[in-house]
Amino acid sequence: MNDQRPAPGNANDLLRLLSRAERLEALPRTGWQICGVERPESIAAHVHGVMLVALWLADHHPEPTPDAERVMRIALVHDLSEAMLTDLPRPVKQLLGKEAVDRAEEQAADHILATLPSWRDAYREYREGKTLEARIVKVADRIQMLAKALEYRQQKRGDISRFFDDDETFDDRGVEPARAIFDALRTCYREGRWFDFHFD
Amino acid sequence: MNDQRPAPGNANDLLRLLSRAERLEALPRTGWQICGVERPESIAAHVHGVMLVALWLADHHPEPTPDAERVMRIALVHDLSEAMLTDLPRPVKQLLGKEAVDRAEEQAADHILATLPSWRDAYREYREGKTLEARIVKVADRIQMLAKALEYRQQKRGDISRFFDDDETFDDRGVEPARAIFDALRTCYREGRWFDFHFD
Amino acid sequence: MNDQRPAPGNANDLLRLLSRAERLEALPRTGWQICGVERPESIAAHVHGVMLVALWLADHHPEPTPDAERVMRIALVHDLSEAMLTDLPRPVKQLLGKEAVDRAEEQAADHILATLPSWRDAYREYREGKTLEARIVKVADRIQMLAKALEYRQQKRGDISRFFDDDETFDDRGVEPARAIFDALRTCYREGRWFDFHFD
Amino acid sequence: MNDQRPAPGNANDLLRLLSRAERLEALPRTGWQICGVERPESIAAHVHGVMLVALWLADHHPEPTPDAERVMRIALVHDLSEAMLTDLPRPVKQLLGKEAVDRAEEQAADHILATLPSWRDAYREYREGKTLEARIVKVADRIQMLAKALEYRQQKRGDISRFFDDDETFDDRGVEPARAIFDALRTCYREGRWFDFHFD
Amino acid sequence: MNDQRPAPGNANDLLRLLSRAERLEALPRTGWQICGVERPESIAAHVHGVMLVALWLADHHPEPTPDAERVMRIALVHDLSEAMLTDLPRPVKQLLGKEAVDRAEEQAADHILATLPSWRDAYREYREGKTLEARIVKVADRIQMLAKALEYRQQKRGDISRFFDDDETFDDRGVEPARAIFDALRTCYREGRWFDFHFD
Amino acid sequence: MNDQRPAPGNANDLLRLLSRAERLEALPRTGWQICGVERPESIAAHVHGVMLVALWLADHHPEPTPDAERVMRIALVHDLSEAMLTDLPRPVKQLLGKEAVDRAEEQAADHILATLPSWRDAYREYREGKTLEARIVKVADRIQMLAKALEYRQQKRGDISRFFDDDETFDDRGVEPARAIFDALRTCYREGRWFDFHFD
Repeated sequence: MNDQRPAPGNANDLLRLLSRAERLEALPRTGWQICGVERPESIAAHVHGVMLVALWLADHHPEPTPDAERVMRIALVHDLSEAMLTDLPRPVKQLLGKEAVDRAEEQAADHILATLPSWRDAYREYREGKTLEARIVKVADRIQMLAKALEYRQQKRGDISRFFDDDETFDDRGVEPARAIFDALRTCYREGRWFDFHFD
Repeated sequence: MNDQRPAPGNANDLLRLLSRAERLEALPRTGWQICGVERPESIAAHVHGVMLVALWLADHHPEPTPDAERVMRIALVHDLSEAMLTDLPRPVKQLLGKEAVDRAEEQAADHILATLPSWRDAYREYREGKTLEARIVKVADRIQMLAKALEYRQQKRGDISRFFDDDETFDDRGVEPARAIFDALRTCYREGRWFDFHFD
Repeated sequence: MNDQRPAPGNANDLLRLLSRAERLEALPRTGWQICGVERPESIAAHVHGVMLVALWLADHHPEPTPDAERVMRIALVHDLSEAMLTDLPRPVKQLLGKEAVDRAEEQAADHILATLPSWRDAYREYREGKTLEARIVKVADRIQMLAKALEYRQQKRGDISRFFDDDETFDDRGVEPARAIFDALRTCYREGRWFDFHFD
Repeated sequence: MNDQRPAPGNANDLLRLLSRAERLEALPRTGWQICGVERPESIAAHVHGVMLVALWLADHHPEPTPDAERVMRIALVHDLSEAMLTDLPRPVKQLLGKEAVDRAEEQAADHILATLPSWRDAYREYREGKTLEARIVKVADRIQMLAKALEYRQQKRGDISRFFDDDETFDDRGVEPARAIFDALRTCYREGRWFDFHFD
Repeated sequence: MNDQRPAPGNANDLLRLLSRAERLEALPRTGWQICGVERPESIAAHVHGVMLVALWLADHHPEPTPDAERVMRIALVHDLSEAMLTDLPRPVKQLLGKEAVDRAEEQAADHILATLPSWRDAYREYREGKTLEARIVKVADRIQMLAKALEYRQQKRGDISRFFDDDETFDDRGVEPARAIFDALRTCYREGRWFDFHFD
Repeated sequence: MNDQRPAPGNANDLLRLLSRAERLEALPRTGWQICGVERPESIAAHVHGVMLVALWLADHHPEPTPDAERVMRIALVHDLSEAMLTDLPRPVKQLLGKEAVDRAEEQAADHILATLPSWRDAYREYREGKTLEARIVKVADRIQMLAKALEYRQQKRGDISRFFDDDETFDDRGVEPARAIFDALRTCYREGRWFDFHFD
């Protein structure tokens, strides 16, 4: 039996969690706005994309086989602090200082996940970024971002070149299948291509 | 070793999957629009919410313990056909006939998940709705919808009473922790309450 | 005396018709959205443009002189089924199959025009597409679409090249004044021109 | 042979007309904005609704039978000057003075319809408002507006009471079937009803 | 003691002024819309920018030193008539005639500023455009517009070339520091540059 | 001669200032979004309103007569740091801690106003809030906010009751004419009134 076995009446715990997490639907990913993309994806939609990438990476990873359940748990909660803190633009974070931002993110996650200690652990695992599962999610976070950038470029919504200028973005963190994907994304970028955003 | 172990060059398989799935970010949940909600949540944001609920239900389910990985796999793909078919409004589906819609959904899922047979199986398991894991996702799909309806009511966006009129919505499909949640949702509805949509 | 002579109390028939038809104002032409045009014209605005083109074609058609009243009646109702069915994107129609879509369109028109048999006849005449008047409206539907595509291109809203790739679009269906118009549209397309979208 | 029979090369006349008239799609009906309705119907969508009402009135008018073609011609052009002048809000018109506004509207219509004298006549007939056909369109213009007001009220978009306060709005101008419709609209207003804006 | 010393109870004068002036927040600068810019700056935001430029010009003007308070008073009220008249697009003004528009603007300002005679004087001073302070605001109005045009061009929102075609725009009206600014703006235009609209 | 007398070539200083300050046009006042107001006023529009109120207060203040120029200088720059930091929602500020936020605001203002030391002083004077002129702007900031809240309530956009719950908001800071205005605002709130948001 795990710690979260419901005591009578904790239905409200789920509803409160949900009412907070649902804010992610209305909160924009601000990095896109800075590039001039109007009405960009929400944080919730970003998490959805990250989960698809992360599960694909887990399913295609050679030995040692990652724990796909753990990968999905981590991906699902990895941006949950933003339900309280919003997606602070990078220059805003720089002004505020890494320390203040980190502490605020931790506090937000603690508050939102107060009744769910094992979910809280998954959030912490992501931030530490050491386990294979956490690294897969971190890489998936970048891949989703780069794919979205190429999509916005094709739709002529904003200038996304900066996302491909920073080599650190393409760090595969030892996640093998990510290498080929980063290469494919860079090739799309160089050749001005992306998958047709028309329907099939 | 599983079936999806990458052959060289299949990075494009992921990017193509992603470029299709990312449409879910731009596609609105049309049920809300019919109720008068402007710019409602996207399908991607809905899936994000369903995953949170589904994992919570799995973590709080008494014996037999559900397979949480399976639950998340099913939740992640359960609306993927809508990336091609869009979220057809219920009255449109009625005009088109259940048979035509079902066939189109199957074809869309087959097309999108052509290179991922095990994901395709999770989609099929959801539609059959027999396993505990599939039933958890189906119930989570309803719970996310009802919570969203209460949120929109509190924000005075549209008239959502119809969602609480249909008893079938509240079928717990044998998922035990869902009963208390449905009760809590109905109580919120009756008493005109919801969690403050202001930030904490 | 015609069939629609009002019996006392049928004012509600008009209001119900209107309340349905007015949905066309809020429903987007989805073909533009697929090309990346945000907030494109509504179906109602499209019908408005088609009526202008159709009447112009009727007024400029050599012998035999078309029945301009008939042309306008047909144009006015030609997309009315979409008030119930919405403007299903072409790929969605392909997934659903022509048969299912055709049947649903007929049912929608029957339902909306139940109290107006002569309007229902005009809708049917459009779909059969045989009379000169129906052919004029069909050609006007294409001309309005191509002109709109050129306008969106000039406004740098989306990629509309596909609309000029399909030769079938330019079928004049024997409507003589349409030939010169299609030529003019193709010339505009080739030369990257359109009328200044600034005010005069 | 009528005056508009095309000389070679006048395809551009239609395209220029269309490029101007299409502005009506992007121009909002400002009366709604003043009432607090965000993103209200466009002028083009308004004209579309007026045409439906006008044709219905013509089809349901007792002896003498109106000329339905004439009714539709008048309805189609009745707001065309707004493609150049925009829909000036009533208080703006009052500040500018009726004379200046009338003169500007005439000039705009002359300019837009320079190559279409018979369309220009229909516009003038509307403004004079004497013939049965012109009166039908004037009454249809009011009916469409009142129905839209009730629709916006039901959708909780803005405060539309002022539209029902002005008795002059309900002048039937001798168009018999309009009386019952005005009564029905007033009844809906008093009883707080409108047709369900949900889909059928 | 000046004329506006409050009599008891005139708090409502401020609130009424404010409730009118706040409309400027919701009213778009229509010149941008004509160029294809969606959701452009409001009139209020424009005034905000003009004030920054005007104060900068005043602070950097050589002898004779302008009255900075007067400059700010003039800038603050210079577009206040638009709270009633809206920002009529230039082609609309041309159709209406300069005389009718001027008279309407005067009346609107008189109405809004009825209780504030000294503010009314500042408005009149702007329109006469003779004093150094009024000329500074007129030049600031152009500079803000040109800078905004360059910003929209960089964001790929609309075609703003026309704003740089009209030599009259660049009339410095004897305001010395404006010359170098106009030169800098023209250089940015020619070289396709603007300040990065990304955050610092 | 003051410190800002332009050296040749500092036109770019103005343009850079402007390019940063113009971000305030696109940045929403987040307090309204938290209350459910969609597309609320921008920071630039807020500043515009604050300037109107501040100047009115200065013009109506009994002895000692405030320095109106100083009041307007302070009002114009009082939120300029938000051009870099954005309008952080109050709960976000609480998570980050007052110290981190204050420091970041100071740094942002220093950066934006690096070439304008006297403007920088006005910003600092506002934050210290001791002089009569700074207190007038602080009170104007509250009055504009409360008036906007009443306007949004009347437009049925969001729930603004919280703004009237906090007594601290109504601190007049010794600015005499503010007392009657706060009373008038509270009366409007209690009685459910506001000035008609329709045009005059």
